[in-house]
Amino acid sequence: MMRKRWFAGICTTALSCSLLVGGNGVTYANAATTTTDASPNKQVKNVILFITDGMSLSDVNLTRWYQGGKPLTIDKYFSGLVRTYSTDSITTDSAAGASAYSTGHKIKSESVAILPDKITMPFVDAVKPGDLNKPLPTIMDAARLAGKSTGTVFTCELTDATPATFLSHAYTRDNADSISEQMVYSGVDVLLGGGAGYLVPGKEDINRKDGEDLTKVLKSNGYEYVTDKAGLMNSKTNKIWGLFNTEALDADFDLNPKEQPSLAEMTKVAVDKLSQNEKGFVLMVEASQIDWYGHDNDPVGIISETLAFDKAFKEAIDFAKKDGNTAVLSVSDHATGGLNMTNYDSATDLVSVLKKAKHTSYGIEGIINEKNFKQVLAENYGLSDLTKEEAKAVREGLKDNLSPVIGKIIGEKIGVTFSTDDHTSEEIGLFAYHPANFKPTDFAQSGVIQNTDVNKYIQNVTGLDLTSLENTLFVSGQKFKDKGATVTIDKTDKTNPVVLVKKASQTLKLPIDKNLAIVDGKTIKLNALTVMIEGKIWVSQEAVDLIK
Amino acid sequence: MMRKRWFAGICTTALSCSLLVGGNGVTYANAATTTTDASPNKQVKNVILFITDGMSLSDVNLTRWYQGGKPLTIDKYFSGLVRTYSTDSITTDSAAGASAYSTGHKIKSESVAILPDKITMPFVDAVKPGDLNKPLPTIMDAARLAGKSTGTVFTCELTDATPATFLSHAYTRDNADSISEQMVYSGVDVLLGGGAGYLVPGKEDINRKDGEDLTKVLKSNGYEYVTDKAGLMNSKTNKIWGLFNTEALDADFDLNPKEQPSLAEMTKVAVDKLSQNEKGFVLMVEASQIDWYGHDNDPVGIISETLAFDKAFKEAIDFAKKDGNTAVLSVSDHATGGLNMTNYDSATDLVSVLKKAKHTSYGIEGIINEKNFKQVLAENYGLSDLTKEEAKAVREGLKDNLSPVIGKIIGEKIGVTFSTDDHTSEEIGLFAYHPANFKPTDFAQSGVIQNTDVNKYIQNVTGLDLTSLENTLFVSGQKFKDKGATVTIDKTDKTNPVVLVKKASQTLKLPIDKNLAIVDGKTIKLNALTVMIEGKIWVSQEAVDLIK
Repeated sequence: MMRKRWFAGICTTALSCSLLVGGNGVTYANAATTTTDASPNKQVKNVILFITDGMSLSDVNLTRWYQGGKPLTIDKYFSGLVRTYSTDSITTDSAAGASAYSTGHKIKSESVAILPDKITMPFVDAVKPGDLNKPLPTIMDAARLAGKSTGTVFTCELTDATPATFLSHAYTRDNADSISEQMVYSGVDVLLGGGAGYLVPGKEDINRKDGEDLTKVLKSNGYEYVTDKAGLMNSKTNKIWGLFNTEALDADFDLNPKEQPSLAEMTKVAVDKLSQNEKGFVLMVEASQIDWYGHDNDPVGIISETLAFDKAFKEAIDFAKKDGNTAVLSVSDHATGGLNMTNYDSATDLVSVLKKAKHTSYGIEGIINEKNFKQVLAENYGLSDLTKEEAKAVREGLKDNLSPVIGKIIGEKIGVTFSTDDHTSEEIGLFAYHPANFKPTDFAQSGVIQNTDVNKYIQNVTGLDLTSLENTLFVSGQKFKDKGATVTIDKTDKTNPVVLVKKASQTLKLPIDKNLAIVDGKTIKLNALTVMIEGKIWVSQEAVDLIK
Repeated sequence: MMRKRWFAGICTTALSCSLLVGGNGVTYANAATTTTDASPNKQVKNVILFITDGMSLSDVNLTRWYQGGKPLTIDKYFSGLVRTYSTDSITTDSAAGASAYSTGHKIKSESVAILPDKITMPFVDAVKPGDLNKPLPTIMDAARLAGKSTGTVFTCELTDATPATFLSHAYTRDNADSISEQMVYSGVDVLLGGGAGYLVPGKEDINRKDGEDLTKVLKSNGYEYVTDKAGLMNSKTNKIWGLFNTEALDADFDLNPKEQPSLAEMTKVAVDKLSQNEKGFVLMVEASQIDWYGHDNDPVGIISETLAFDKAFKEAIDFAKKDGNTAVLSVSDHATGGLNMTNYDSATDLVSVLKKAKHTSYGIEGIINEKNFKQVLAENYGLSDLTKEEAKAVREGLKDNLSPVIGKIIGEKIGVTFSTDDHTSEEIGLFAYHPANFKPTDFAQSGVIQNTDVNKYIQNVTGLDLTSLENTLFVSGQKFKDKGATVTIDKTDKTNPVVLVKKASQTLKLPIDKNLAIVDGKTIKLNALTVMIEGKIWVSQEAVDLIK
């Protein structure tokens, strides 16, 4: 099997990175072109990017008070505010919010790492008509093609918007089968989190409709695949997928530490493995569930997941300080819930209420019922004095959603309210560490920056270049037609359609959502995925070059 | 008249600032001791400190969207978060919040620039029993004694908590007569804002109970006293008080620009006058009313006052950049109202609603009534489509408080809600400019800092030293007794009590709330005020030294 490879090179602008077409028709970037406008002391080899889904600065405030006012690890590194709006909305969803970090582009809400087809917001570049919905290369693509290792860590299901935006492309974020398949073929080295059900067919609520067992694909592609904490901790390989639950992982306050790793543990393992690569790595770590507890108005869940994030951040900082060649960033895709606290008590008073909460509202879901709720709430939250109204509300909540009911009872004791079960428009916090103290706010020359600036900063300090990749990793399938070829979609296998390109005696098959090209029965690994967005095919220029 | 003067000197720690006792028994700091741990490029001559009372970062977010998403002047300078809690409460009031900035100490809620007698919160130094409620020197004292000019600008009444904490001392903030008298005798060079009623006796709601006309005192002490915008703009002096309304000034959206100056105009005039002093200046500018509109849940009022602040900040930055020797800071004492916005519209949609609001809810108070409210709301807010429920709510509001009613109607159109009519515990934003880019977060080596760090930073970059002043500007009246003198309070003039100190043939009179000592019928100007807190007398060491 002839393997063709595209090297991203180290270049910060498209112009500085001249493209050479090799004799075999494969496009290479000129790896020797290493000029960069980032001065040497700004350059780092590794980047660890945290995304705290839905975390507001008031969530952090509450979490700090949970520990009696003691600063969190992140506090020292706070350095700015980030504007998160999408191309079509003041308040963004996670897909557009996280895509800005993965691609450097503001995109339309609900989309995954593709150019927008709707722009109604300021400071967004127009999109050429032919580029509407075009998939965007991500920082993971650029890192992988530059020879760096890549990883994603999260506590949600792998197909959730934030991890999805780093490793896949979709018109809408809910296309889980397509997203998970793209992730399997994305070339990511380390992927740890939840959502194992999306890899296999079966009877679980979460399963693949296309009948494929993607765990077999992973193994055949040289990955170790683990499903419990012991498997992760005993792993000796550097190419590993670990999905520790069929659905999302349990919250930090709730998880069984013998079965599921914590976010901090996953972060440490990921860093240990990725840092074996001399060329460096890019790791995205998502504290996924702060958002969910924000939606469900559960302050205890927010504290659980914010503390879990803070511990994971500490792992990253400890590594970065020792390593000396690593930047650590943390941002949120948006804030959720509109938590506010008005509390005129002392810290001790607040702590005495909060420390009685041993589990999040999700953590007691399996055990609480209409008969035992008084006992369960007393044991798990110290709520031994429910009023009649509160008891009535709990009974109602048990039929529908108990989280906001418990959240409200606890909230009233500590002065915490939520303004919405939705996202908010507020700016979110940027926390940053860089060995030479060059931060995204320095790069953008402002204390309030755009979410896209975070991605551009990563490009700047690593020398990775997404702009040039945008012209080569995803081009329109029309390019085959321009060469005189015909393009059809072979839907023989309904859930696994294949792009069929024919010109004279040449036949090229490009299975959708995979990084494969089949030419004359031989399978070639491409530098990018073949993706279909709203019926339009996008392929790597490398695939186009396979047709003579 | 023999004038005795205490020089603060330039010293950053009490130890570096050795005290000398002159032959006349007056204490001088050794002005030659100019060692400092701030490297030369960190030093600035002038500091302009903004306090945006009650401004949350979500208030800023809303204001930015009001102008279609265009960055505010302050955005570029955002550099950290500030923890505002007081010594006895997670959520502070303005008095304790602002006192931290004026004195460098966290103090008890509701108190004005005195050490706390209650500490239930973390990271607060214990207070020696003898120092409970001891008045604290402020950065204005240190600046004045170092020969710098000082100023305060605000849009509230002068006796409101924030301006009060820079120029006076009180056990509770509501002691307006005492506070305004102290301010008159504080030695401040420029004071501009509202609350003229507190200077004179009279029939207005706001008037002096003690029958004194303090405008006469101001004039006899060499101040120009102006009460309208023309007077301010035509002023040629550098010692000036300008109070442009009996009560607070009008909001920026509401004020008559022929009668009242804007916050930006007052800031510009203050800077022009204070910067005449070659030794530099310290200016505090308060955007006072963001807090009030937060309490009253009026988003339009918040926008009005946040924009007015942003314009004033621009005046300060423009001066600082030209001057090259000025640091500009902005902080809030706390956040108010818990504004949140969840808005999935475009910026244009939001602007189209908000730009119809021409006045704050206070601005229409005088004209709206039960008969004309539909017309007034249509003309001033574009609210021409009130529902029956909204009209009913407005009628109810007219009897009590209309602001939150209008705020809610507007809020529902733009996705804005308020979680409280009170303060919140959230961290507030730090915006900072320094010619060598040395910011409070650099000084404190953290992106999340304490409110007290802001004061310590000002000391650090100006070389002013409050610690040494704490031992000399306010000492216990007990010190007279230690010298064998008797101390009584002469209440002949009930509203103007005088401390009477007698030892053998010596008689010393110290009028409370004034910086005067009367010895043998001669009036001497002291370096600090004589203050009575909870029945205990605090005097300058200079006054103690007058008794042999």
